[in-house]
Amino acid sequence: MALIVQKYGGSSVADAESIKRVAKRIVDTRRAGHDVVVAVSAMGDTTDELLDLAHQVAPISAPRELDMLLSSGERISMALLAMAIHSMGFEARSFTGSQAGMITDATHGAARIVDVTPVRLREALDEGAIVIVAGFQGFNRDTRDITTLGRGGSDTTAVALAAALDADVCEIYSDVDGIYTADPRVVPQARKLDVVSSEEMLELAANGAKVLYIRAVEYARRHGVMINARSTFSSGQGTFVLSPGMTAPASIVTASPRTQESPMEEPIVAGVATDLSQAKITVIGVPDVPGKAAEIFKIVAKSGANVDMIVQNVSAAATGRTDISFTLPKTDASLALRALAAEQADVGFESLVHDDQIGKLSVVGAGMRTHSGVSATLFEALSTAGVNIEMISTSEIRISVVVRGDDLAGAARVVHTAYGLDGDTEAVVYAGSGR
Amino acid sequence: MALIVQKYGGSSVADAESIKRVAKRIVDTRRAGHDVVVAVSAMGDTTDELLDLAHQVAPISAPRELDMLLSSGERISMALLAMAIHSMGFEARSFTGSQAGMITDATHGAARIVDVTPVRLREALDEGAIVIVAGFQGFNRDTRDITTLGRGGSDTTAVALAAALDADVCEIYSDVDGIYTADPRVVPQARKLDVVSSEEMLELAANGAKVLYIRAVEYARRHGVMINARSTFSSGQGTFVLSPGMTAPASIVTASPRTQESPMEEPIVAGVATDLSQAKITVIGVPDVPGKAAEIFKIVAKSGANVDMIVQNVSAAATGRTDISFTLPKTDASLALRALAAEQADVGFESLVHDDQIGKLSVVGAGMRTHSGVSATLFEALSTAGVNIEMISTSEIRISVVVRGDDLAGAARVVHTAYGLDGDTEAVVYAGSGR
Repeated sequence: MALIVQKYGGSSVADAESIKRVAKRIVDTRRAGHDVVVAVSAMGDTTDELLDLAHQVAPISAPRELDMLLSSGERISMALLAMAIHSMGFEARSFTGSQAGMITDATHGAARIVDVTPVRLREALDEGAIVIVAGFQGFNRDTRDITTLGRGGSDTTAVALAAALDADVCEIYSDVDGIYTADPRVVPQARKLDVVSSEEMLELAANGAKVLYIRAVEYARRHGVMINARSTFSSGQGTFVLSPGMTAPASIVTASPRTQESPMEEPIVAGVATDLSQAKITVIGVPDVPGKAAEIFKIVAKSGANVDMIVQNVSAAATGRTDISFTLPKTDASLALRALAAEQADVGFESLVHDDQIGKLSVVGAGMRTHSGVSATLFEALSTAGVNIEMISTSEIRISVVVRGDDLAGAARVVHTAYGLDGDTEAVVYAGSGR
Repeated sequence: MALIVQKYGGSSVADAESIKRVAKRIVDTRRAGHDVVVAVSAMGDTTDELLDLAHQVAPISAPRELDMLLSSGERISMALLAMAIHSMGFEARSFTGSQAGMITDATHGAARIVDVTPVRLREALDEGAIVIVAGFQGFNRDTRDITTLGRGGSDTTAVALAAALDADVCEIYSDVDGIYTADPRVVPQARKLDVVSSEEMLELAANGAKVLYIRAVEYARRHGVMINARSTFSSGQGTFVLSPGMTAPASIVTASPRTQESPMEEPIVAGVATDLSQAKITVIGVPDVPGKAAEIFKIVAKSGANVDMIVQNVSAAATGRTDISFTLPKTDASLALRALAAEQADVGFESLVHDDQIGKLSVVGAGMRTHSGVSATLFEALSTAGVNIEMISTSEIRISVVVRGDDLAGAARVVHTAYGLDGDTEAVVYAGSGR
């Protein structure tokens, strides 16, 4: 008998029928002899509808009240889910973030978990009940107010509960059946990975893979929680995200070369991530004197924009000026542009170029550490395909390149093939996504 | 400077526009220099929609989970209301039933208030904030679970807060501008009452008047809370419900004879209540031996039906049998009929007659105590109008008669005129109603 934490996103509980299907899945897990704790998101578009209402009553929402408002969404879904389980003859009890002991700091809208004290959950489990917990929400002890965790909050709730309850596995259900070697909508030959290391998962998530939130993966890595990303709509085993020292369940070890001990067998690359959400800003004619780059990025940081990649061109000796390019989320671009334009005279640059037609392609693999020639394969594949590389950045287990947005899908397919990642069949793709 | 508790029902906060209008009303009260505590219901049809969802996921809802579900409705409306007030430049803080210290017993769906400990509300008031509290919900200390108060819960929340905070007045806002001498949809000449005694209000509410819930009026009477029933949609002063020892605010004393000290000036009758929600069951051929009536009403009580009026006909000496009629809510009739039919052989009655075409007319007035001839006026008016009386019941300050349902409206108009209650103008009627 194991203790299993399951997380269901908004699309998995979008309506009464979906809730009943999820209830059945939970009951099946219980019938198999396991203790079950479930973290659940708000139904379908509830959160967006509540945000829309908030905008209608007030142009700027008081953060405390916005959290009070948004936290009601999970109360609805969790109570309905508990009722559905009840009607199948199983005892189920729902708990708010505060009742579940999700203690956070007081940062409304983006609270950090500071402690998890699941006393009531343990009591309910000891009494044989299935436990349903509101995802995304917590409670601050000092203000005694309700908080929300921000983007990916329900995933984080699930992983934090798994850590606090010492669960055997944290199953994150969504509308896709695991982590793929690439986004199957972009690369039809993408294969589902049976296992992926948490460090690879972090790089994939940070570079466009959408199945898991970075924050939840980080929490899992830090607290030694095994994540299993799987689909609400199929019975496949999904993908196990393993942190150092973990071994995948016996049932899938033999099926996948990536789970075996020998590094010889391990493919170099875990996957190819694609991201169309970034824009590029180029600061042209920056005086090539020490401290100018620091000056520029201090201005950008102060504007609230999050810079990703940075490239500085070699200075043209004749002019004593250089160009600096950086990428950032498209939604942050206007912030950065406005801030830089305001300081143009002080910094002394010539002009700003904004390019929102870029695409970012990243190749991720723990095997990069021990294998050479990984980047050569990437550059060769892109060159053969006639794709121009505009920027490059690397980490220990990742290479990212910026290309034209129109080239991104074709580039991803070529690169996916070049690293030997193609599967035999086309991947099944489901629509929608959860919180 | 006074402390004013205000309650807004579902129809007053049905959408973003309504919420902004209510927020403005609250802010106006605050601007006038008063401390304001607001109890708010769920938006419009939210509760019905949530109940509908519950029915879809489970035929029978687990009571604890149903309370968890329904209590989310007020969290939405209170947070939105607090945001709207914020955006008008005033500090507002919303509190759940549990945060507000509404301690109840553990009866899910119909919890009774056992204590009110508004520590956080006092703190917020001391800090100058407008306080918004979720109506309809509470918290049980033993189970640490969320409860709901049942029908009329938000009115009761408001009155209980007014009592605990020692408020100067509890303003109950709805879509009608006060208590009328009759339902204006039935009697167009009905007049708004400036004041009504709480005992009269209890009788009116118990006999079909819909503006205030009995439970809230009882709570107000027991704890000495002055209720002011008024409209969200107009600026009228509404109706003050006065318990023993209270005097109406100076502004309206001179305007109404009912507020003056001299009993000579007090009209005998406060109003005429009408009720089409009752049915009549007649048990025919009951053996006329001691204990049979008790037997019958024990069976009815056990079925869960709530009996209102009871009439036993004079026994026909020849047969040794009698008929017993009683009224009860239409919705309870099938319960009672089934229970009685099952025990027919034991009780020994001959048959059951179910009549759901009845109407109940009640004349209510504290003046009845000191004036004779009140019932004669009623009977004479009905007789002149050709309305047949089927059952009669009386209390110290009320006479009720059962007539044909089709006759009820006409009877009410005739009786209203006979007691000199008619106003000069037709009443304004608004649509909808709140929780």
